[in-house]
Amino acid sequence: MKEYASLSKEELKNEYENLNKEYEELVSMNLVLDMSRGKPEPGQLDLAKDMLSVLDANTEFVCNGQDARNYGGLDGLASAKELFAEMLRTSVDHVFVGGASSLNLMFDTISRAYMFGIMGETPWSKLEKVKFLCPAPGYDRHFAVTERFGFENVLVPMKADGPDMDVVEELVKDPAVKGIWCVPKYSNPEGVVYSDEVVKRFASLKPAAKDFRIFWDNAYMVHHLYEKIEILNIIDECEKAGNPDMYYEFCSFSKISFAGAGIAAMATSPANLADAKKTITVQTIGADKVNMLRHVLYFKNAAGVDAHMEKHAAMLRPKFEMVDRVLSEGLEGLGAGTWAKPKGGYFVTFYANDNCAKRIIELCKKAGVVMTGAGAPFPYGKDPKDSVIRISPSYPTIEELEKAVKVFVTCVKLATVENLM
Amino acid sequence: MKEYASLSKEELKNEYENLNKEYEELVSMNLVLDMSRGKPEPGQLDLAKDMLSVLDANTEFVCNGQDARNYGGLDGLASAKELFAEMLRTSVDHVFVGGASSLNLMFDTISRAYMFGIMGETPWSKLEKVKFLCPAPGYDRHFAVTERFGFENVLVPMKADGPDMDVVEELVKDPAVKGIWCVPKYSNPEGVVYSDEVVKRFASLKPAAKDFRIFWDNAYMVHHLYEKIEILNIIDECEKAGNPDMYYEFCSFSKISFAGAGIAAMATSPANLADAKKTITVQTIGADKVNMLRHVLYFKNAAGVDAHMEKHAAMLRPKFEMVDRVLSEGLEGLGAGTWAKPKGGYFVTFYANDNCAKRIIELCKKAGVVMTGAGAPFPYGKDPKDSVIRISPSYPTIEELEKAVKVFVTCVKLATVENLM
Repeated sequence: MKEYASLSKEELKNEYENLNKEYEELVSMNLVLDMSRGKPEPGQLDLAKDMLSVLDANTEFVCNGQDARNYGGLDGLASAKELFAEMLRTSVDHVFVGGASSLNLMFDTISRAYMFGIMGETPWSKLEKVKFLCPAPGYDRHFAVTERFGFENVLVPMKADGPDMDVVEELVKDPAVKGIWCVPKYSNPEGVVYSDEVVKRFASLKPAAKDFRIFWDNAYMVHHLYEKIEILNIIDECEKAGNPDMYYEFCSFSKISFAGAGIAAMATSPANLADAKKTITVQTIGADKVNMLRHVLYFKNAAGVDAHMEKHAAMLRPKFEMVDRVLSEGLEGLGAGTWAKPKGGYFVTFYANDNCAKRIIELCKKAGVVMTGAGAPFPYGKDPKDSVIRISPSYPTIEELEKAVKVFVTCVKLATVENLM
Repeated sequence: MKEYASLSKEELKNEYENLNKEYEELVSMNLVLDMSRGKPEPGQLDLAKDMLSVLDANTEFVCNGQDARNYGGLDGLASAKELFAEMLRTSVDHVFVGGASSLNLMFDTISRAYMFGIMGETPWSKLEKVKFLCPAPGYDRHFAVTERFGFENVLVPMKADGPDMDVVEELVKDPAVKGIWCVPKYSNPEGVVYSDEVVKRFASLKPAAKDFRIFWDNAYMVHHLYEKIEILNIIDECEKAGNPDMYYEFCSFSKISFAGAGIAAMATSPANLADAKKTITVQTIGADKVNMLRHVLYFKNAAGVDAHMEKHAAMLRPKFEMVDRVLSEGLEGLGAGTWAKPKGGYFVTFYANDNCAKRIIELCKKAGVVMTGAGAPFPYGKDPKDSVIRISPSYPTIEELEKAVKVFVTCVKLATVENLM
C-alpha cells in the first residue's frame, strides 16, 4: 500500500470502502476490550503476593524504639525512610513516607501552599492569579489537581529529552508561575527520559517566585522495560545549583507492590520538610507504619526492588513489543501516524495525523475498544492538534491486547482516510 | 486527715513540711513514668496480631468486581463500607472509608471547606472571620486543626451529659460559626456520654450558616470498659430533624486493631459525600484497600468488633479501677480535687482546685512523671480555672501506673497545700 496522502481520489474512495467494510465487521463482533487503564494486570499483583505473609505474630515490630503498630512517627518508619532514601539516592533527612498514594502527597503539597503558603510566602489562595506549567503530553491527574485549585495550567511543549527548557526558562520569569509538573523518567504518556541537560537546566532555573517549586513525580523510577536507565538526581543538582529548596520529588510502590496498597514518599530539602510538617503534624499522627514494615521486610533494599521490577518487566515487555509489532505491520509506510518506543513506564503514545485523534477514539469505542479520552494528556483536555493518543498495554491479557491493537489499527486507517477525503 | 481548707495555719505548715519531705524522696528516686499518652499498650496491639496473617497467597482479592490490590474504589472496598455501615448503624451510601487516620479525614474535611466551600457556599478561606465551637475540656488535636486554619476557637462549657446546649444554640445564631467539635461517647478527656436530649438538640440546631457542620468524632464508639452503652444515632436524628446534611461523623480502628495501621471512615449524607468526592477524586485514586480487606476478614462484622473490644476492656479496666482506687485512698476527704469515673474511652479527668493544675503537673514532671500539659484540653491551651488534668492510664504497665498515680497524689496534695498557704 502506498502512503495515504499520495492516493488519488478514486484510490482513497476504494480504500475507504474496504476499510469501512472491515470496520463494520469488527463492530458486529461486539468486542469488549480496554486499553485505557494504566494499571497493573492481576499477574503483576500476584508477583508481590508473598509480601502479605512477611508479617506474623512473631514479627519484631519495634524499630529504633518505635512500635510500627502504635501511634507516632510522623514522617514514617525509620527503616522505610532508609529504603526510600537509597532508592532516591539521598539521605533520610530528605524523606517523608506518607500513605499509599503519591498523588495524595502531591495534592496535599499544593493544598498546603494554597492554604498556608510555602516558607512564609503568601498563601496561593490569597493571590489574584497562580499559573502552573504543564509539559504536555503529560499526566491528566497532575493537571486535574492544579485545575481544581483554579490555577491557570500553561502548556509547555515536550521534546524528545524533556520539556522545552527554553519555554520553561522564559515562563518562570512570571512571578505568577508557582510550579511545574514533571515525570522525569519514562514520562506519562510518552516515555520520555529527561536528559542530563534538561535536569541541569531545571536545577538552575531562576524563577521570579521565591515559592516556585518543581513537582518531580518520579513515578516510574524503577519501571524499566529493558536495561536500567538512570537520570540525574534532581536533589543533588538543585543543591549544586544553589536551589536546594526548589523541588519536591515523589514516588510510590503502587506499581511495584500493589497499586491499591503500596507506600508513597516525598523527598525534598530538610527546610521544605520542616515547613510541610508544621501542617502535617496537625493533619495526622502518621501514616500506616505496619505497611511500611511489610514493604521493608519484603523488598529489603533498592537491589531487592530492582530484582522485583525485573519480574514486572518480563510481563510487560511482550505487551509493549506486541503493540509495536501490530502497529508496524498495520501502519508502516501509510503516513497514518507514528508512535513512541518507550524503554520503560506504562504507556505507548500514538501520534495520529492532525485532527484525527478524537475520531479514532470514537471509532474504537463503537467497535468495543475503550481508549483514554482524546486530549486527556493536555491541560483542560485540549490537544491543540487533536493528534495524541495514549495506549495502555498493561492491564489486558496479551490476547486481548492483540485484538484491541488490531481494531485500533483499522480505526486509525479509517479515520486517516476519512480525513483526507 | 481533715479537709485541707479547714486546717489552721500551723497545721497547714506541718502538712506542707511532711508532704515536701515525701516529695523530695520521690524526686530522689529518679523515676521515669508517663501518663501523658492516650495510646494502647503493646499487649493491646498483640490482641490483633492474627489479623496480620489473614491475607495470604490464596486470598480472594476480588470483591464486587474490584481487586482490592489494584487501583480504584475511591470510597473504599464494598465490604469495608458494609462493616462501617453496620457499626455506625447506617447504610453504605453514607460511608466513605479512607486511610488509617480519622484525624486526617477530619483535617481534609475542614481543608475542603476552606479551599472550595461546602455545597456551593463561599470557601471559608474567603471569609473575614470563621469561628468554631470547642466544647471543653476536649481533644487538643481537634482544636489544633481549627487553630491552624486561623479560625477563632470558641470555648463551650461541658456538662455531665454533653456540651452546654443553651450556649451552643445561642452561638450558632452567628453566621461566622461554621462548626463544632464533638466526641459524643466517652469524650476525650472526661468520658462524658452525650444524653439523648443533647443529641436531639444537636440534630435540631438552627444555625445561621448554611454550611455549619457538626464534626461528630465517634472515636470511642465501641470502647466500653463495662457494659455496652449506645447513644442516639446522629445520622438518623439529623435526618428526622430535617437537617440531613448538618453532620460529618468520623471513626477509626486505631484503638481497635493497630493505632498506627487501622482503617478510618467518615459517615455523612449522600449529598455531603458527593460534594466531598468532587475534590477527593482529584486528590487520590483511593486508600489502601488491602488493609480494608484484612480488617473485614479478621473482624467480619460489628459483633466481631464488639467481641474484640471486650478483650481490650479486660486489659484497660484494671488500670482505670486502680487509678480510681489510688486517688480515693490518697485524696478522699481532703478537698484537694475530684475526678471522673468514666465507663469507657481512654482517659480519667482530674479536677484540681482552681489554680493548681499547672503546679501539679510541674511537680509531677520534676518527680519523673510525665503528664499531658496543663490546659491542653482547652482552646489555645488555656484552662480558665487552671484545674483540669488529663490522666492516660492505657500505655504504662499496671505496676508503673500505680507508682505514677501515687506520685501524682503526693503532687496534688503538695500543690493544694501550697495554694492554701
